[in-house]
Amino acid sequence: MPQTPPTRFAYLGPEGTFAEAALSSVVAPGEGVRQPAASVPAALAAVRAGESDAALVPLENSVEGPVPATMDGLSDGAPLVITREVFLTVAFVLAVRPGTRLADVRGVVSHPHALAQTARTLAGLLPGVPALPASSTAGAARAVAEGEHDAAVCAPIAAERYGLVPLADDVADHPGAVTRFVLVAPPGALPAPTGNDKTSLVAVVGDRTGALLDLLAEFAVRGISLTRIESRPTRERLGVYSFSLDCEGHVADARVGEALAALHRVCDDVRFLGSYPRDDGRTNRPVPDVAADAAFADAGAWLDRLRAGQV
Amino acid sequence: MPQTPPTRFAYLGPEGTFAEAALSSVVAPGEGVRQPAASVPAALAAVRAGESDAALVPLENSVEGPVPATMDGLSDGAPLVITREVFLTVAFVLAVRPGTRLADVRGVVSHPHALAQTARTLAGLLPGVPALPASSTAGAARAVAEGEHDAAVCAPIAAERYGLVPLADDVADHPGAVTRFVLVAPPGALPAPTGNDKTSLVAVVGDRTGALLDLLAEFAVRGISLTRIESRPTRERLGVYSFSLDCEGHVADARVGEALAALHRVCDDVRFLGSYPRDDGRTNRPVPDVAADAAFADAGAWLDRLRAGQV
Amino acid sequence: MPQTPPTRFAYLGPEGTFAEAALSSVVAPGEGVRQPAASVPAALAAVRAGESDAALVPLENSVEGPVPATMDGLSDGAPLVITREVFLTVAFVLAVRPGTRLADVRGVVSHPHALAQTARTLAGLLPGVPALPASSTAGAARAVAEGEHDAAVCAPIAAERYGLVPLADDVADHPGAVTRFVLVAPPGALPAPTGNDKTSLVAVVGDRTGALLDLLAEFAVRGISLTRIESRPTRERLGVYSFSLDCEGHVADARVGEALAALHRVCDDVRFLGSYPRDDGRTNRPVPDVAADAAFADAGAWLDRLRAGQV
Amino acid sequence: MPQTPPTRFAYLGPEGTFAEAALSSVVAPGEGVRQPAASVPAALAAVRAGESDAALVPLENSVEGPVPATMDGLSDGAPLVITREVFLTVAFVLAVRPGTRLADVRGVVSHPHALAQTARTLAGLLPGVPALPASSTAGAARAVAEGEHDAAVCAPIAAERYGLVPLADDVADHPGAVTRFVLVAPPGALPAPTGNDKTSLVAVVGDRTGALLDLLAEFAVRGISLTRIESRPTRERLGVYSFSLDCEGHVADARVGEALAALHRVCDDVRFLGSYPRDDGRTNRPVPDVAADAAFADAGAWLDRLRAGQV
Repeated sequence: MPQTPPTRFAYLGPEGTFAEAALSSVVAPGEGVRQPAASVPAALAAVRAGESDAALVPLENSVEGPVPATMDGLSDGAPLVITREVFLTVAFVLAVRPGTRLADVRGVVSHPHALAQTARTLAGLLPGVPALPASSTAGAARAVAEGEHDAAVCAPIAAERYGLVPLADDVADHPGAVTRFVLVAPPGALPAPTGNDKTSLVAVVGDRTGALLDLLAEFAVRGISLTRIESRPTRERLGVYSFSLDCEGHVADARVGEALAALHRVCDDVRFLGSYPRDDGRTNRPVPDVAADAAFADAGAWLDRLRAGQV
Repeated sequence: MPQTPPTRFAYLGPEGTFAEAALSSVVAPGEGVRQPAASVPAALAAVRAGESDAALVPLENSVEGPVPATMDGLSDGAPLVITREVFLTVAFVLAVRPGTRLADVRGVVSHPHALAQTARTLAGLLPGVPALPASSTAGAARAVAEGEHDAAVCAPIAAERYGLVPLADDVADHPGAVTRFVLVAPPGALPAPTGNDKTSLVAVVGDRTGALLDLLAEFAVRGISLTRIESRPTRERLGVYSFSLDCEGHVADARVGEALAALHRVCDDVRFLGSYPRDDGRTNRPVPDVAADAAFADAGAWLDRLRAGQV
Repeated sequence: MPQTPPTRFAYLGPEGTFAEAALSSVVAPGEGVRQPAASVPAALAAVRAGESDAALVPLENSVEGPVPATMDGLSDGAPLVITREVFLTVAFVLAVRPGTRLADVRGVVSHPHALAQTARTLAGLLPGVPALPASSTAGAARAVAEGEHDAAVCAPIAAERYGLVPLADDVADHPGAVTRFVLVAPPGALPAPTGNDKTSLVAVVGDRTGALLDLLAEFAVRGISLTRIESRPTRERLGVYSFSLDCEGHVADARVGEALAALHRVCDDVRFLGSYPRDDGRTNRPVPDVAADAAFADAGAWLDRLRAGQV
Repeated sequence: MPQTPPTRFAYLGPEGTFAEAALSSVVAPGEGVRQPAASVPAALAAVRAGESDAALVPLENSVEGPVPATMDGLSDGAPLVITREVFLTVAFVLAVRPGTRLADVRGVVSHPHALAQTARTLAGLLPGVPALPASSTAGAARAVAEGEHDAAVCAPIAAERYGLVPLADDVADHPGAVTRFVLVAPPGALPAPTGNDKTSLVAVVGDRTGALLDLLAEFAVRGISLTRIESRPTRERLGVYSFSLDCEGHVADARVGEALAALHRVCDDVRFLGSYPRDDGRTNRPVPDVAADAAFADAGAWLDRLRAGQV
């Protein structure tokens, strides 16, 4: 299964979003075609339709939590897998046309989430000035550039793109919010294990006491740490739970492979969402010797001998 | 600890939101004072400040997922507890001023989430008509009432409140989305057990393999089912995880009380978020005899005898 | 690994023991050479030395418990595996030379264990008559045949062998005692799975809280039932525990094989003691679908596809 | 429940057994009345009948394994509890009448277990000399004293009691065998916790996958280590297992008490067999802070506040 590296990248647009900034951090300028999509579903659809080779979409945000459109978009429909993760600090700027001063600002426009995350800072900088909604932070920047509004809360990349200048940097009330983006592609050759990988999956289990416990036991007995778990609603089927989780390790690792195979047996459904290099600045917990590939290989060889009568 | 029933209710405003509709389903008309708040944090702050007796806020949505502002607002700050849950089907209408016809609509305004959830339906009803952002679905309705826009996607209660009429009902692309609201109040006398209750809590555990498994084992050994679990980021402390979860049963139940006490021992931190009647239309799993209060009472009496030397 | 069926059988002698009776139940008369051994270690040594092809020895008794000589003899030394199990009801008879009547009996001789298990019955039949020790129940029968004593408590086979007749059948105080014998042989082709098999092993684990729990979890997560477990002293190494256990299933079964391989990884030491047809008159618990070979095969094929990038 | 210290001690006789030696190590000479019993059941019956205040009986032997008569005698019948444990090194001597030399010995008499444990040493010392069975090692010593036989394998205390002298000390093939004796008494005031205690119990569980695992989980979640576990046959009821186990800690400890109460709920039956000072020369594992009494007390107080509405 040889695989051409992706060259056409969809991302959650419009131009100037944090998603574009995240994409820029993994694709060098001029290296591929960047295709803004109107929504996460649209970005994923572009990949499924073969119009894009990969899509860069947000998966979770340290302030806003998981991004349901991405979670659901990966859980349903034709399979897609995560091939990279990108963590981006969400640094909002208050952007204006060159020459605008604070005193000139009669309204601040942005996506409601961005307005919510900067409300207190804006109240300090611009007391009494109304906050106006926009469809996206990038759209807000464009509206300012076009003269519709005086100031936008947006990403630095959007300010730059639309010729705006920051009146204030880092206007978030709780600076340091981070968004985790993922690059998703059609199934194909997996990223090679790096020794510091994550694996993502969605598991659907029946509604009984201990179902989640049983699921987690499959990881625990094999010495695998989870880094994220969420229950997801499965509204279609009453009494059935879906869990979205990330664990340390790569499906090519013996322990992770055996755990996934076990989930395949015991869960109602399991969808593999990819193994990819960990990129959140942390290092996986050391794998205990008894869970390392060598231990699995030894144990497998021993079992083969047992079964052949060569105890 | 006698407790006066709440009479002043904050809710996520403005007037005409689904939160107000949810509040109306639990407080009879004319029975209390309703106080719209600009945001979830504002609603919770009003309760903490004693300006409201309780707040009605969204906790999770079957389409959008958990509501971080509520999750975080309950996890941090002065303690608040959930005293009721309310499930409300989110039925969007396309609302216009009386007399407006589909052909007259040149723009549809709403909160971006609502626009996202109705995009396909709107594209069918109003091809080519632009979607315009508003700060809330209720604000969108008001803007239409005031003649700023032609049509709003909003809650039926907002249409009614602002004198609008529905051009189309149930315009969600995936009808049936449900939002779970909770009524939160300062700690005080707990709602009495009904036999069909839920208990919510947030537990913080150290970052080690099996920490979550150990946490879940405390529920499993006592025959308690979980109905929701999510890992929450605790960005302040690297390597520490926070889990938000709901289980079946009431803290007054022996099994739930013992499980909570166990979490108090083994977790870095546990915050109790309330025991309240289950109201999602489902019934708790039958409690096994060995986990019922009578079994705990028998076992406790037996242990007392053992310790007194009366085997 | 073709294997000639065993033809030379050691057993715990002397002639006339319950072990010989057990051997007779699995080897047709005239079908092999039977070699009485002076002790369990002697019987096992004969197999290890190649002087016998297999040995029939007691493993546990429903009254006396495990037989340490056999447990330890299998755990240590050159590997031997169990190829059959035989359950024999231990029906003691009070045997005399023809013509002896109860009133003639001035002493009853037997192995102390047999005397202990029949003390009450003998006190009723022969009040005031002394009980005299012998090295084995068969030796006691021979002593009676040779006129040294008047009556022996022994196996029916011993009475028959030495020309004695029973004055009373079933003289055990608690009738129905059962001894579990095993036929052990050098490693070689395993008995074919029958669908109702047991697997025996000894596992050595370090001395830490939860070591046994972890060990058992390897069986539980794979849907395997245990039928026996005992902690065995490992006096040589302080702080190390050895567990001897039997589980349902055959090492050729995927779930059992994977569990054994897991033990091989996580335990300090594991010794496989054989997979053989269950013969205690019970049937293994039904294997859940998710733990059946087909489920393992499906899961393995699915994992192979994942790893090949063919989700 | 004040309790007079025991003064009448039954022990597994006859005089001169290792049981008497064990008793001597816990009761000063002249301090109580010592009553040899013909068997373990007889010793236990004497306590149950009020003829003795306590009984000293063997529970397990490092060579011979558990002593079924004691295990079963404590599991069934009127309740008895262990109040002490005593570990005694089983040092066999080859005892003769003064003046007898090795060359004079024409037969060696002892209990068959003792003969089995010394067979190799005896074969070296006395090649070709026959081994003759006796009902007990002490009885063998007496028979030598009375001139019936030339030499006995027995305890040093038996040699001394019957005026014999050792021709050879420590004639066990594997020196260092240890027998664990227990002092059992009717229920009454428990021995005070010492910080280094053990608790013994027998639990009966239904026959289903994971029953034992569930049982062990009750200890593991509360940070309690097991020091012994055995499955015991429960022949009366097919498909039911009985487990005999020892854990670290005292029933007065919060974690042990809660675990026992949990077993009382989830098991078919639990019999408490006592909490008593550990006396095997080892020290209990340190109790994790989260499982200490203080943590349980804190957690209980916290729960009380929760339930009172004082979060």
